[in-house]
Amino acid sequence: MAVNTKVEADQNAPAVTRILAEFVATHPSKGWSDAVEHEAHRTFLNWLGCAVGASQHEAVQAALRAVQVLEPATQAMIAGRQERVDIANAALINGISSHLFDFDDTHLKTIIHPAGPVCSAVLALAELSGASGRQLIDAVVLGIDVACRIGNTIYPHHYDRGWHITGSTGSLGAAAACARLLGLDTDKTTMALGIAASQPVGLREQFGTMTKPFHPGGAARAGLMSALLAREGFTASPRAIEAPRGFAQVVSTKFDWNEITDELGQRFEISFNAYKPFACGIVIHPSIDACVQLRGQGVTADNLVRLDLRVHSLVLELTGKKEPADGLQGKFSVYHGCAAGLIFGRASEEEYDDAIVNREDVVATRRKVVAIVDDTIDEAAVEATATLKDGKSVHIRVDHAIGSLQRPMTDEDLMAKFTAMSVPVLGAKKTRSLIQQCWSLSDAGDVRALVAQAS
Amino acid sequence: MAVNTKVEADQNAPAVTRILAEFVATHPSKGWSDAVEHEAHRTFLNWLGCAVGASQHEAVQAALRAVQVLEPATQAMIAGRQERVDIANAALINGISSHLFDFDDTHLKTIIHPAGPVCSAVLALAELSGASGRQLIDAVVLGIDVACRIGNTIYPHHYDRGWHITGSTGSLGAAAACARLLGLDTDKTTMALGIAASQPVGLREQFGTMTKPFHPGGAARAGLMSALLAREGFTASPRAIEAPRGFAQVVSTKFDWNEITDELGQRFEISFNAYKPFACGIVIHPSIDACVQLRGQGVTADNLVRLDLRVHSLVLELTGKKEPADGLQGKFSVYHGCAAGLIFGRASEEEYDDAIVNREDVVATRRKVVAIVDDTIDEAAVEATATLKDGKSVHIRVDHAIGSLQRPMTDEDLMAKFTAMSVPVLGAKKTRSLIQQCWSLSDAGDVRALVAQAS
Repeated sequence: MAVNTKVEADQNAPAVTRILAEFVATHPSKGWSDAVEHEAHRTFLNWLGCAVGASQHEAVQAALRAVQVLEPATQAMIAGRQERVDIANAALINGISSHLFDFDDTHLKTIIHPAGPVCSAVLALAELSGASGRQLIDAVVLGIDVACRIGNTIYPHHYDRGWHITGSTGSLGAAAACARLLGLDTDKTTMALGIAASQPVGLREQFGTMTKPFHPGGAARAGLMSALLAREGFTASPRAIEAPRGFAQVVSTKFDWNEITDELGQRFEISFNAYKPFACGIVIHPSIDACVQLRGQGVTADNLVRLDLRVHSLVLELTGKKEPADGLQGKFSVYHGCAAGLIFGRASEEEYDDAIVNREDVVATRRKVVAIVDDTIDEAAVEATATLKDGKSVHIRVDHAIGSLQRPMTDEDLMAKFTAMSVPVLGAKKTRSLIQQCWSLSDAGDVRALVAQAS
Repeated sequence: MAVNTKVEADQNAPAVTRILAEFVATHPSKGWSDAVEHEAHRTFLNWLGCAVGASQHEAVQAALRAVQVLEPATQAMIAGRQERVDIANAALINGISSHLFDFDDTHLKTIIHPAGPVCSAVLALAELSGASGRQLIDAVVLGIDVACRIGNTIYPHHYDRGWHITGSTGSLGAAAACARLLGLDTDKTTMALGIAASQPVGLREQFGTMTKPFHPGGAARAGLMSALLAREGFTASPRAIEAPRGFAQVVSTKFDWNEITDELGQRFEISFNAYKPFACGIVIHPSIDACVQLRGQGVTADNLVRLDLRVHSLVLELTGKKEPADGLQGKFSVYHGCAAGLIFGRASEEEYDDAIVNREDVVATRRKVVAIVDDTIDEAAVEATATLKDGKSVHIRVDHAIGSLQRPMTDEDLMAKFTAMSVPVLGAKKTRSLIQQCWSLSDAGDVRALVAQAS
């Protein structure tokens, strides 16, 4: 039995539940910069691509079979699939698929993957009501702001304690987004946040299992239902987030309320959202990026003799697997990531297929990689030196990998990522149409036009 | 910002997720004493009566309207109502109604109300599959054992931290019960518990709002879906309860694993379940009990001059409201509770109606009550002295109130409680039939016979 550690309650927290609710209910439509507006479209596009890409995965199929026991109404689409289910279960399943490949967005300040809970919930609701793209984008920006500001308030202690912060803050973000889409007033939005506050979803212990991607799905479902309950007059504590026995103080030992109130309505957390270029843990991204760049400079699996990496200690701690046996293990191998970057010029989900991880040239290439820890190297950086058969060497230093806030994925990068995931599922024509409709989403009179192309 | 308090992780916890799963999957049907078997029937009866009794409450109606947005299939009954919904939402709504009056069962060691999550989930599932009463009772006993043993492991620290322990352990109890009813093996039951572990529901901050009874409902729904997901091959950590970043260590700073493993399969926690005789916080029960006894000895509102109570300090701390304005406030008034006991001989939900709380004779009677704190009086006790118009006085000492483990509600008490709640909703005939079917539930070939009488 561990020692009890009583945490002193903060009795004087500002009324952040109500402050957030008023913000969500009353902030003007498109009340932000063009840059924020564009980032919302990028976030939505990236989310949808990930959901389509993983839509045939066995975890999605298992979840769908479980949901079908309920004989759900055919209200809403499941990205990349023909089946339709009720909006709550569509939120659940799309939330699962969008996070399955570990390839979704990341709010780097909190490592929340905010689109999963928020977009999955609000798109299902928007489809049912025939909401406009404008309403959808407004709800996405505001819902993500709520989830990430609450995340900023309790991070890192909350995460350190063992919560998967994507699902625990995601219920609140999804509730906020759905309350906005439903047009709830401040009082009812306060209740929606209150109901959602009682439903944090997610433990870090689940990493490596299907329950990890369940977390954003469960949060999406919980948030959506919280908003529907609030609309019907269901009540909750109006101080459910900040009270001594409310969400923040129960799930964290740090609660920095300023993170919720500072520049609310001026600074939007979606601005700090990033998108993964590689379908693996973010700590390997600089090394893969370096290998993609070496490939661009003529380094190949054939002419390479040896690749020396100088990396931050976390890289080997988390991803030091030398001989991964399958795709999942490959995600924890900087060696495989480098081989993929050198041979394929990328490391998307395909490069984590079991067959690829065990392909002869891939195995031979990863065995040429020698990684050593260098304490002078930052977590976001890598030094890579390729020694070639002709005796020459090529050196690359990456300070910020592609996909970081300093070197964000371009719109073209995001489209290429989307295309790679979507074409095998939906075909080229629908994929092109979907991409176009994502970029012009805020102008769409009815989101159902886009939805019709997504399955 | 509060200070961070790092809790040392317990790396060496026994594999309690799997231990509990194996117990749930393999313990023999009716593998317990007749006393345990009878207690299971009492628990089910009491749960059903509470759910029927609160079935017309506005919280149930609001929840039902929200659920109807999903156009649910008509798979399962809602106690006391004509509408039918899918099994997940039936679990939700019956869980809400069963806890709404604060009149349900209490596992006194942990103040868990275990039937709400467990019975609500498993009855819906049993109705859909046409399970036998034997299967249902087995699942109830085992599900309640799982919830309460996990509760014992983390109580009181978990509750002190702000969790509503009924909903947080309820997801696990409901998952266990549903896994048993589905006949899942040890591996899949482990996964069901794992999936449920990521979904604790409930904050104490919600007390006094509709979200409090939402907690057992949300837990019932989560547990039911966790079992269905596990059946379909959905995976979770097999150490989701005990790992350093698993349920117990994330939501509590105390984790006494022996509470799970000691006498598992020999001692059944349902044996320690108690049933409320009065529809209010348990701290007033001795005072109301004393007043009911005084009434039995001829004390009336008319002949009473003054009622002196010597009570534990918690009574006035929690329920010291002298002039309650409505029924909800009446629940926090020992004065109203005493008036109800003296005038009506009971304090069921009816006696907490707004009109009763404001009725002239009730107000006059509560004003005759003088309560003082006496540090020699135990929390479970009271000393009451009635001074009458003829100058005589009547003294009562209650050491253990009716409804405690020392003075349990008799089967007749439970039937009277059930009848008072059910007759206004279902009528006398269905009520009698339901009571009879509850007592013989373990012999029922198909639970749908009982279900047909419950709505």
